[in-house]
Amino acid sequence: MSYISARNLRFILHEVLDLDSIRQFERFQDFDQEAIDFSLDAAQQLADQYLHPVYQEMDKNKAYFQDGEVHVLPEVGEGMRAMGEAGWLSANWDYEHNGQQMPLTVHNAGGLIFQAANGNLAAYGFLTTGAANLIREFGSDTLKDIYLKPMAEGRWQGTMALTEPQAGSSLSDITSTYEEQADGTYLIHGQKIYISGGDHTAVDNVVHLLLARKKGGPKGTKGVSLFVVPKHVPEGDDLTDNNVTTAGIYGKMGQKGYVAAHLMYGEQGPTRGFLVGQEFSGLKHMFLMMNEARIGTGMMAAGSASAAYYASLKYANERPQGRHPGNKDINAPQVTIIEHADVRRMLFFQKAVVEGSIHLLLQCSLYEDHYRANGDERSHLLLELLTPIAKSFPAEYGNEAVSIGMQVLGGAGYTDDFPLEQIFRDIRVNSIYEGTTTIHGLDLLGRKVMMQNGQAVRYLKEEMLAAIKAASAQPAIAELATALGKSLQGLQEVMAQLLQLAREEDPKVFLADATVFLDYFGLHVIAWSWLQQATVATRALESAMTVGKDPLGEEDQRFYQSKVQTARYFFTYVFSRTAGLRRTLLAQERITLDTEAALLV
Amino acid sequence: MSYISARNLRFILHEVLDLDSIRQFERFQDFDQEAIDFSLDAAQQLADQYLHPVYQEMDKNKAYFQDGEVHVLPEVGEGMRAMGEAGWLSANWDYEHNGQQMPLTVHNAGGLIFQAANGNLAAYGFLTTGAANLIREFGSDTLKDIYLKPMAEGRWQGTMALTEPQAGSSLSDITSTYEEQADGTYLIHGQKIYISGGDHTAVDNVVHLLLARKKGGPKGTKGVSLFVVPKHVPEGDDLTDNNVTTAGIYGKMGQKGYVAAHLMYGEQGPTRGFLVGQEFSGLKHMFLMMNEARIGTGMMAAGSASAAYYASLKYANERPQGRHPGNKDINAPQVTIIEHADVRRMLFFQKAVVEGSIHLLLQCSLYEDHYRANGDERSHLLLELLTPIAKSFPAEYGNEAVSIGMQVLGGAGYTDDFPLEQIFRDIRVNSIYEGTTTIHGLDLLGRKVMMQNGQAVRYLKEEMLAAIKAASAQPAIAELATALGKSLQGLQEVMAQLLQLAREEDPKVFLADATVFLDYFGLHVIAWSWLQQATVATRALESAMTVGKDPLGEEDQRFYQSKVQTARYFFTYVFSRTAGLRRTLLAQERITLDTEAALLV
Repeated sequence: MSYISARNLRFILHEVLDLDSIRQFERFQDFDQEAIDFSLDAAQQLADQYLHPVYQEMDKNKAYFQDGEVHVLPEVGEGMRAMGEAGWLSANWDYEHNGQQMPLTVHNAGGLIFQAANGNLAAYGFLTTGAANLIREFGSDTLKDIYLKPMAEGRWQGTMALTEPQAGSSLSDITSTYEEQADGTYLIHGQKIYISGGDHTAVDNVVHLLLARKKGGPKGTKGVSLFVVPKHVPEGDDLTDNNVTTAGIYGKMGQKGYVAAHLMYGEQGPTRGFLVGQEFSGLKHMFLMMNEARIGTGMMAAGSASAAYYASLKYANERPQGRHPGNKDINAPQVTIIEHADVRRMLFFQKAVVEGSIHLLLQCSLYEDHYRANGDERSHLLLELLTPIAKSFPAEYGNEAVSIGMQVLGGAGYTDDFPLEQIFRDIRVNSIYEGTTTIHGLDLLGRKVMMQNGQAVRYLKEEMLAAIKAASAQPAIAELATALGKSLQGLQEVMAQLLQLAREEDPKVFLADATVFLDYFGLHVIAWSWLQQATVATRALESAMTVGKDPLGEEDQRFYQSKVQTARYFFTYVFSRTAGLRRTLLAQERITLDTEAALLV
Repeated sequence: MSYISARNLRFILHEVLDLDSIRQFERFQDFDQEAIDFSLDAAQQLADQYLHPVYQEMDKNKAYFQDGEVHVLPEVGEGMRAMGEAGWLSANWDYEHNGQQMPLTVHNAGGLIFQAANGNLAAYGFLTTGAANLIREFGSDTLKDIYLKPMAEGRWQGTMALTEPQAGSSLSDITSTYEEQADGTYLIHGQKIYISGGDHTAVDNVVHLLLARKKGGPKGTKGVSLFVVPKHVPEGDDLTDNNVTTAGIYGKMGQKGYVAAHLMYGEQGPTRGFLVGQEFSGLKHMFLMMNEARIGTGMMAAGSASAAYYASLKYANERPQGRHPGNKDINAPQVTIIEHADVRRMLFFQKAVVEGSIHLLLQCSLYEDHYRANGDERSHLLLELLTPIAKSFPAEYGNEAVSIGMQVLGGAGYTDDFPLEQIFRDIRVNSIYEGTTTIHGLDLLGRKVMMQNGQAVRYLKEEMLAAIKAASAQPAIAELATALGKSLQGLQEVMAQLLQLAREEDPKVFLADATVFLDYFGLHVIAWSWLQQATVATRALESAMTVGKDPLGEEDQRFYQSKVQTARYFFTYVFSRTAGLRRTLLAQERITLDTEAALLV
């Protein structure tokens, strides 16, 4: 594949995460290594056939709004149905819901392939799965009977209808209303903006999972409930128009084939909604989907960054340019640019971000598998703690990685002769989707670090110390283990200072630099990832040298060496940033708090 | 102005740079403060009338290639001629060439206004000035007589025709050729790519300043000469076609209204060129323009970042969203987002980058004014040393600042309802133009730091120590002075290690991390800028409190306080990055050198 490394996915799943252990759960017992690899091969073939070929086309022939309808390429529908028919939109569902009981970890590994091949098409499917999951989890049997099948087949689009013009990230301020009708359905009224997949011609129906407030009910998040609001209400074999009107779509910098709509409900006539789960539990229910969507956003970013990395790598291996400094022989042929140290620095950055992100995302998925399989609290807390990082690190560092990937190509990277410029535009939105990076900083520091008295952080520290111990036993990478161990003490110090502020002052004081803390904390998490990857790789290299063992093939040898070098790179060139972030976090300045708005001129 | 602060330009010019001192030179004696402010006001009016209104339009109606011609909006030509007629394209030329003998510092302050208003239109003019400067400096009287006037009037476009498909940044590998003809003109043959302003319908002629190699002459840069190659050869009042053919233009991520062309010379018939300056001195002559163009690229980036800052600031002051953490009262009105500490952190970042960049660019311009006025060697060396930073810092940190500026707007920033997304696409190319950031790292560390045995660095250090001394006398900012002083010792240590490598090993070893060094060094330069700005501001605040002095107006008070707070911000949130960069530079790892290309998989 030219957009993601299958070898790397297998390495993470089988060698780093030891996914085979998941067969301890009856639900997953069929998923041995062979079955997993077979699934990923199938995902790759599907992505090669339906998704990757239209990545650039979806940008060049962007979605448009005409005569009240949003038009997208027919290939979007074909791709969705192909993913649906192959079972990818419902793979982790129970057999009783026509799922395959696939571990989420495998499902998400497949999802990463789709995201890297064409995140804009994959997103339509991914969002549909997320919306259907809410119905499957909290919906009545009637709702499940009606909606799950066509959504799983990719014939109906699902959406998350949260954002409103006046509220943005502030969900307690939403003003869309509902009123119960005599027949037990609800009348929905209001507007939603930036609704991804909100309306388009490639599907037969659109199913909005929508938050609304009871008319005259309590203010804040308390009065909010969750509804299924279909574009067309299914009645028997018919689809009846439900007065969900598209006011327009947004002109976006990227993801131009992935529509974001402005929708109106109940303005042109009555719009009916169907309650999902408990009344007034809307936000709680929605959080299930939001957590998934956050991991999904991280996946979209990691997929984009992956596609960019392989495009840059290909160019760097093919493009001759210049000679080494010191070689003044103008008759010498030019070298390919990968020979230049600075080009390698850039490629390593891309690789370190991509493979660190993929590991973290699949690690989170595995925690979720464990939690769902047996309610394991440790896994649950680790997942909760790591979710803001799994969303934000791939987004923020992915932006930087793709920008650096464009830089590898020089002027060519800025033109649409190469995919970098589109990926650069596309990936940028992931720092905004599903809560901006600011929101995730507040989530990490204000909620996750604090929850259960810091229990999640203690669990993570245990995991990190175990990884440090394992790496310390490998002389080739022991110094990386030492570096992480030392930096954990710095992290501890920073957290102690922040927690003291949390106790002594208004919450806004300790949260003022939450985004900086997110970055700082996230780098430790990715360092933990690279330490684990390097440990596994070092062991593989070592074990192959043991007498009586088969030597590694050249390709495997290179693969593992590459992992070790990338880990060294990450610590030297990226993890080093923690020094400055720590300095910022420990500074007793309160510039951003104390400067009044009028001083920003 | 909504895209740049006139107050800040006046502050930098009059208060920080003390530009009045330039009147010591007879050439500049008319440029007192009043004359300068008058010029800048005029620039603003022109920018408001001709440039700013078509910024988005030039993106939405991009340049296109049809029937052999490149079409741009007619407003491009109107804007160029307006700048020309007002004298801006030749303002710093001698009176004898119809210039105004304007100090470059003032000229570039005006240029910053144009770049912030609409860099894509300003660039056409800026490039024309640069090309004309080469003719003015090295051309024969005949060339001057023919070309300077129509170029200064914005009726003819100038270009820099260097890059070739196989050579990119490696100018020693260019293959376009020239052959002398009996009449003393030259036949030009070859291709040039990515030629900005290379061809378009808004002007009557295009004048390429082109590098070519003597047919059969020496290889490398030695065989290269500089030519004027017009699209149409002026003969009397006629313009005769010169067989410069446009093969096409590039589809670019941004700057869509600013054409980049692929040109062919001598393919459809003979193309005539006119030698500029000495034969075989082409590269040396071209460097004059390249140095200007590098400062110009920094200006373009700083201008874009400035426009983004004021757009973000406006949004942050208007958009209500959420409440302070800790305020759980859902009946409380939402606050404007500028009230959130993290939004202020983002806005401060933008401001610190914009105003630090502007100061550095104008400081460089002032060094050039001094050097040109009396050949001052110190100014010359400082200019040479700072040029790679004046080009790269605004580009690299400008990219980040605009991205952060988009983040301030959240989802709205990603849509084309606001200018951020265009600025984000537009500014990105400045890290590529006129030598990628990699090239400037090599230039800084491999040439500039080394030149004259480190004399330029010693001069800069003297300047920095003087600024530290002045700031130390102000208790309010003394700690910033201490921080810079301390960090200079770290810089010294890093340089000592690099210079030792330079002496002992192959050049590629000490240059391997030149880009990291550029970042590290550049942050010290911008810290020096903020220290100076804070010193002036602190003195102004202090002096106004002296008995018998007029108190400052509210606006001035805020302006100076804002400067001091931004300086504090810069040191706490941005300059802190030097800690990690230093760690990377001092690491004895040689990952990017030692990893063979095949390990990047």
